[in-house]
Amino acid sequence: MNYALVFRLLGRLLMMEGALMTPSLAVALIHREGDAVAIGATILLCLGCGALPGYLLSPKREDLTARDGMAVAGLSWLLLSFFGGIPFVLSGAIPHLHDAFFESVSGFTTTGATILTAIEGLPKGILFWRSFTHWIGGMGVLVFTLAVLPRLSGRTSLLARAESPGPTFSKLKPKMGDTAKVLYALYFALSLAECVCLRLAGMNLYDALIHTFGTAGTGGFSNYNKSVAAFGNPLIEWIIGGFMLLFGVNFAVYFHAVRREGKPILHSEEMWGYLGLAFAATLGITLTILPEYPDFFSALRHGFFQTNSVISTTGFTTADYNAWPVFARALLLLVMCTGACAGSTAGGFKISRVQLLLKSAYRDLEHTLLPRKVAVVRFEGKPVPETTLGQLGVYLFIYLSVFLIGGIILSVDAADPTTAFSASLTCLSNVGPGLGQVGPTGNFAFFSPFSKLIMSLLMLGGRLEIYPILILFSPTVWKKN
Amino acid sequence: MNYALVFRLLGRLLMMEGALMTPSLAVALIHREGDAVAIGATILLCLGCGALPGYLLSPKREDLTARDGMAVAGLSWLLLSFFGGIPFVLSGAIPHLHDAFFESVSGFTTTGATILTAIEGLPKGILFWRSFTHWIGGMGVLVFTLAVLPRLSGRTSLLARAESPGPTFSKLKPKMGDTAKVLYALYFALSLAECVCLRLAGMNLYDALIHTFGTAGTGGFSNYNKSVAAFGNPLIEWIIGGFMLLFGVNFAVYFHAVRREGKPILHSEEMWGYLGLAFAATLGITLTILPEYPDFFSALRHGFFQTNSVISTTGFTTADYNAWPVFARALLLLVMCTGACAGSTAGGFKISRVQLLLKSAYRDLEHTLLPRKVAVVRFEGKPVPETTLGQLGVYLFIYLSVFLIGGIILSVDAADPTTAFSASLTCLSNVGPGLGQVGPTGNFAFFSPFSKLIMSLLMLGGRLEIYPILILFSPTVWKKN
Repeated sequence: MNYALVFRLLGRLLMMEGALMTPSLAVALIHREGDAVAIGATILLCLGCGALPGYLLSPKREDLTARDGMAVAGLSWLLLSFFGGIPFVLSGAIPHLHDAFFESVSGFTTTGATILTAIEGLPKGILFWRSFTHWIGGMGVLVFTLAVLPRLSGRTSLLARAESPGPTFSKLKPKMGDTAKVLYALYFALSLAECVCLRLAGMNLYDALIHTFGTAGTGGFSNYNKSVAAFGNPLIEWIIGGFMLLFGVNFAVYFHAVRREGKPILHSEEMWGYLGLAFAATLGITLTILPEYPDFFSALRHGFFQTNSVISTTGFTTADYNAWPVFARALLLLVMCTGACAGSTAGGFKISRVQLLLKSAYRDLEHTLLPRKVAVVRFEGKPVPETTLGQLGVYLFIYLSVFLIGGIILSVDAADPTTAFSASLTCLSNVGPGLGQVGPTGNFAFFSPFSKLIMSLLMLGGRLEIYPILILFSPTVWKKN
Repeated sequence: MNYALVFRLLGRLLMMEGALMTPSLAVALIHREGDAVAIGATILLCLGCGALPGYLLSPKREDLTARDGMAVAGLSWLLLSFFGGIPFVLSGAIPHLHDAFFESVSGFTTTGATILTAIEGLPKGILFWRSFTHWIGGMGVLVFTLAVLPRLSGRTSLLARAESPGPTFSKLKPKMGDTAKVLYALYFALSLAECVCLRLAGMNLYDALIHTFGTAGTGGFSNYNKSVAAFGNPLIEWIIGGFMLLFGVNFAVYFHAVRREGKPILHSEEMWGYLGLAFAATLGITLTILPEYPDFFSALRHGFFQTNSVISTTGFTTADYNAWPVFARALLLLVMCTGACAGSTAGGFKISRVQLLLKSAYRDLEHTLLPRKVAVVRFEGKPVPETTLGQLGVYLFIYLSVFLIGGIILSVDAADPTTAFSASLTCLSNVGPGLGQVGPTGNFAFFSPFSKLIMSLLMLGGRLEIYPILILFSPTVWKKN
């Protein structure tokens, strides 16, 4: 590892985190609920701790290997999460450091799982920061790092590869820096649109911002214990439900939309697969929960909202789906497994991976039927290399193993297997709420500190597609080079 | 499809099934409980229906394509299961045909899932046949077909490939027919050893045979509602627990043992992985359930028995593990996912597949760390082709998809997600009991006829490694050639 360069990167990232806390400081100062000191102190801490390695170190070489790039990704998220949790502890909102770390990891990884049992009582500046981490985490360290450190050497694309939220991210612009700016603009525009819609639907500005951050990052932290159900406003539920679906779409689609290029959108197999699955699940759930609601449109609203919330890995809730028929819960588990599109802010295994595996499976079956036929798997018009398909199977195995091992460890604390395994899956997929004790009306507070650490690793692993976290356990990464 | 040849094969197989019912007829005649007529009538039906295509058809060509071979495998199991269920209906033991089919599929696939709520009251001939289907199914249509139809053309090995219970089956003897005889002899010898041990432990001959059939086929049907717990005899539990473990080992190991070849046994990665996992799970479960039992050895006995029962996909029970701590249940779910060795009578995903995927994953991670290193995955001393590794990932995906879709369909009838998904997994892995409503004290009677059909397909899919059942849904297979 090129320690000097890595420390400088991390130092500057930390300073950036301090700067990103200033809006929360402003909110705290406006509302005067005693949390301004905690946030202000953390800002100074971030700037101080960051400036030392960020500006005093002079690396001999200005390049990163792919391995170091991956390690930086993992370390960045760990560092951001650790310092991001400090305001929670200093303000007294979350007394224990492991709980604050869990909450902060849940924020930056846009998971939305919470250990808080009484959210409404907390100061507004703290809750603003908690949700703002979703917005920061949303577009990922990919864009983040590209904007903070644009002068990184030619290997930047490898760094980005480790952090992009999916297997493919269409090259929108030849230069990475330009891509980042475009993505920034789209992200900002979509967020603004949602915030305006929520304001028009009657939300106050503070609540509208909080819920926009949660939707845009597909995170799901709310400032109400009852989540979106607290508003009791169907229009708000339709708006957030719709935007959750939108933020799960590959951002390349929006880029093409802005450039008025219809063809790539029409041929986006992933987008159509995603929308199709979301539609099918919404329909299935709506019909299943019909007897539980007074009329079709109430059932549809809840079905639409909850499906989009889970498939986009957001995790807002309008209903206690734990009380829904088992079939509806099973459909939610299915879309929790697939997740949304690559190149979006959503987590999960990703629709495009499922589609590629489906095509591979179909090809294998076809080969069994017609052994002489040689078929190439094609995706969105392009042939997919066999090595990619092979790595996909391996990734599925790793994902599954991490989920299973996570579930087994969590089963020490859980009251039933459903809680343990759904907690593991919901953390790994960055959804937030699960089933059983961690369902919409529950939370993650009852887990032991060790289980909370495991879940933090699951959330980080899920967000960074596992490898950047796994390799931190290898001594090879830590060797000086 | 070469219809004439396929029908002739199936016809002769059906006649063989009729012949295999004669021991059950003998049992029925000895005990005089009114089931002899039902069994006798079914024997005549099998011989009659089988003789027509079995001896009157004269195929123009005597060869099978690989595709037809697979289809024959799937059709054989369907046919055997259908006719195998007829005695249950005729005797009145199971009034409904769909229930009888489920029970028969569960027998031939060596699953051991039952819809019977009161087993003790049934006639002895019927219960003997029910368990004997495990013993027939145990070594699979592989050996079965090889013995019935030894004069099949040169493509036999393809037929066998579809039906061998795992990805690899060491070539013990150059000729397939000789291999079959060796496997027969080993299977018979091990079964005899267990039966003698059980007799010495105080079981009567009838019970000893029933439980030997259940163990040898890794099936798990008992003639008692309480399964092996009914005997209340620790020695019997240790014996059956040990033999369940033994029947999960690749039979190639026993072949080498008989030939006094120590080296291949020492280098059998799969066997050591299997024994290691069984040991670790036994230890973990024993320590977890320690507070539930009076002393360490009681806990160890139940831990050993239940672990071996699930990992070998047998499904006998001595304890209501639904009442065990969640961690112990999670460990049982883990070994339910892995299953036992390829080349044994056990079902499940198979240890060797897990090991190969683990090696692939390690190789991928290593490649991330050291991109210049080119590594080949080796298993039991031999390099594994990349195409095999690729197909393994696809198989994992198909296995997982079938499990998930099965769980979603079953969730329509189930009271909770644990029941639905564990029922799907236990059927697909050919284990038998699951968790929740289908736990050790429950059964599968409450499911709708449609769900029972789905579970029958899951059991058949699991036993035949999915492909031979899946391709039956393709029109290509049914085209005349």
